[in-house]
Amino acid sequence: MKNPDAGTRLHAAEAFAPGSIGNLGPGLDVLGLAVSGIGDAVRAERGNAPGVVIVDPGHPDLSNDATTHASGIAATAVLRLAGAEDLGLRLWVRKGLPLSAGQGGSAASAAAGAGAANALLDTPLPSIKLIEAALEAETVVAGRHLDNVAPSIVGGLVLIRSMDPLDLVSIPVPTGLHVVLVRPEMPLRTADGRRVLPRVVPLATTIHQTAQVGAIVAAATSGDLALFGRAIDDRLAEPARAPLLPGFAEAKRAALDAGALGCSISGSGPTAFALADSEVVAGRVGEAMRQAYTNAGYACDVRVTVPDLEGLRVMTG
Amino acid sequence: MKNPDAGTRLHAAEAFAPGSIGNLGPGLDVLGLAVSGIGDAVRAERGNAPGVVIVDPGHPDLSNDATTHASGIAATAVLRLAGAEDLGLRLWVRKGLPLSAGQGGSAASAAAGAGAANALLDTPLPSIKLIEAALEAETVVAGRHLDNVAPSIVGGLVLIRSMDPLDLVSIPVPTGLHVVLVRPEMPLRTADGRRVLPRVVPLATTIHQTAQVGAIVAAATSGDLALFGRAIDDRLAEPARAPLLPGFAEAKRAALDAGALGCSISGSGPTAFALADSEVVAGRVGEAMRQAYTNAGYACDVRVTVPDLEGLRVMTG
Repeated sequence: MKNPDAGTRLHAAEAFAPGSIGNLGPGLDVLGLAVSGIGDAVRAERGNAPGVVIVDPGHPDLSNDATTHASGIAATAVLRLAGAEDLGLRLWVRKGLPLSAGQGGSAASAAAGAGAANALLDTPLPSIKLIEAALEAETVVAGRHLDNVAPSIVGGLVLIRSMDPLDLVSIPVPTGLHVVLVRPEMPLRTADGRRVLPRVVPLATTIHQTAQVGAIVAAATSGDLALFGRAIDDRLAEPARAPLLPGFAEAKRAALDAGALGCSISGSGPTAFALADSEVVAGRVGEAMRQAYTNAGYACDVRVTVPDLEGLRVMTG
Repeated sequence: MKNPDAGTRLHAAEAFAPGSIGNLGPGLDVLGLAVSGIGDAVRAERGNAPGVVIVDPGHPDLSNDATTHASGIAATAVLRLAGAEDLGLRLWVRKGLPLSAGQGGSAASAAAGAGAANALLDTPLPSIKLIEAALEAETVVAGRHLDNVAPSIVGGLVLIRSMDPLDLVSIPVPTGLHVVLVRPEMPLRTADGRRVLPRVVPLATTIHQTAQVGAIVAAATSGDLALFGRAIDDRLAEPARAPLLPGFAEAKRAALDAGALGCSISGSGPTAFALADSEVVAGRVGEAMRQAYTNAGYACDVRVTVPDLEGLRVMTG
């Protein structure tokens, strides 16, 4: 992420954070990938009274209460972590990401809120503190996990080794990796996607999941896209969540038949993601998935994109 | 591994395979590391009658029945996989690795048996077939897992992504990694170390294990030894097996206090391993662990070594 020079006292700043695929295949709570294109933006202006005010929550379904809006919670946490509670902030949110889609929207709002607030501090916090602040918001809004927040802030592919203490590892993103995001128009609350997860996991499944996460990291660092795809083999969250997502099984089969390296659920859904080794194949995969969802009776939004390597960016002014 | 030129019909060959750390930290059944130094060797000579005969099993406690000795089972499997059941083989085993120690001895015997038999074939099998053959032996002798067999054959650090189908990933070994192996003199059967494993794993533990395996792979490829050590944080097998291993908890504490990057149980024990970033620290760690076991009433054998990058090697003659 980029931070402006903090020497001059800024009046306003705008921050943008990309969407992300959390729970990347077998990487439940552990692997997330930032994706290029749409994201959430927050403009912050200094206010006259201490505290954070949401002027525009960015979507009619979102609250303008700063204690429940992801951007507001994260901005408030930034002020607290910086010891700057006397600062007043007014926030305008531009919500580019769809709500409750599994595309890391709440994390992006939190990241952008944290980034915009941070840009107005006399001494900005380092990224790791912004991640802490955004995690506070994500915990309230979507659950205590970092697999969306971390990539949304630092960009690229991130492994969360530990939450306590915070220990994140940026994994190189392999060249040529293309991402297809397909969001069928069906409701699914993040909480529902979470509730269906099993509380205990058979030993053999645990072993399988560890091997797949290790293989994704190996594949990413060596640039072995075929291995990356083979390792998108989630036997934990996907089987639990797929029954909530009509059309997903068919869309996945269509994606693989059309040449996708791998396919699974983005976050807790309903968005499905697929990976491909070229834009042409990615386009073909996206259309195949759209057709499968259409056949199942669901319209959908298809995006063909690439990983976002930059994460949170701040524009002053 | 190296294979001799198969153009000439050989009368005898000798193969050597190194020991290994299976279940490397959180990598139960998934991560293994070959280690330099002692290993098992098998000399094979052509016999007059078809079939495999064990002339010397290499240890008084080992059977000279080729259907139960790891080297014999693996050699027999090589002949079958090569369609060379008409060949007769006589095997002499030199057992360098301790029995039932958790240092990959059965896998090394299987690997060396497979390698020696393979060297006498007119058309030797590729490594992947030797791994299949050695796995047959390991399955009979120690259980169906590859985290010792694979590194013993291909060398270095190996991730087993899948057993069915076989999908192995060689992970770069970070420069400077030193290994301490401490074997306290206490009996432990591999089967006992296996029996205490839980059948189901809490979801949070599964997530933790996936993150650690991913972090080990990331650390190995980037050469981040400190991260490698932090990721040797096994909350599955180690807590289950430690109660069978008096002195281990104290030895681990002593290792970490002496500067080890990480410390856990090698395979299912009783050997403990520690990792260090230099030979000097490794020596200090080894002595600290020896002292801890001695205080607990157990003599022990301490080895300071490095990863073996070569795996199975075959000498003809």
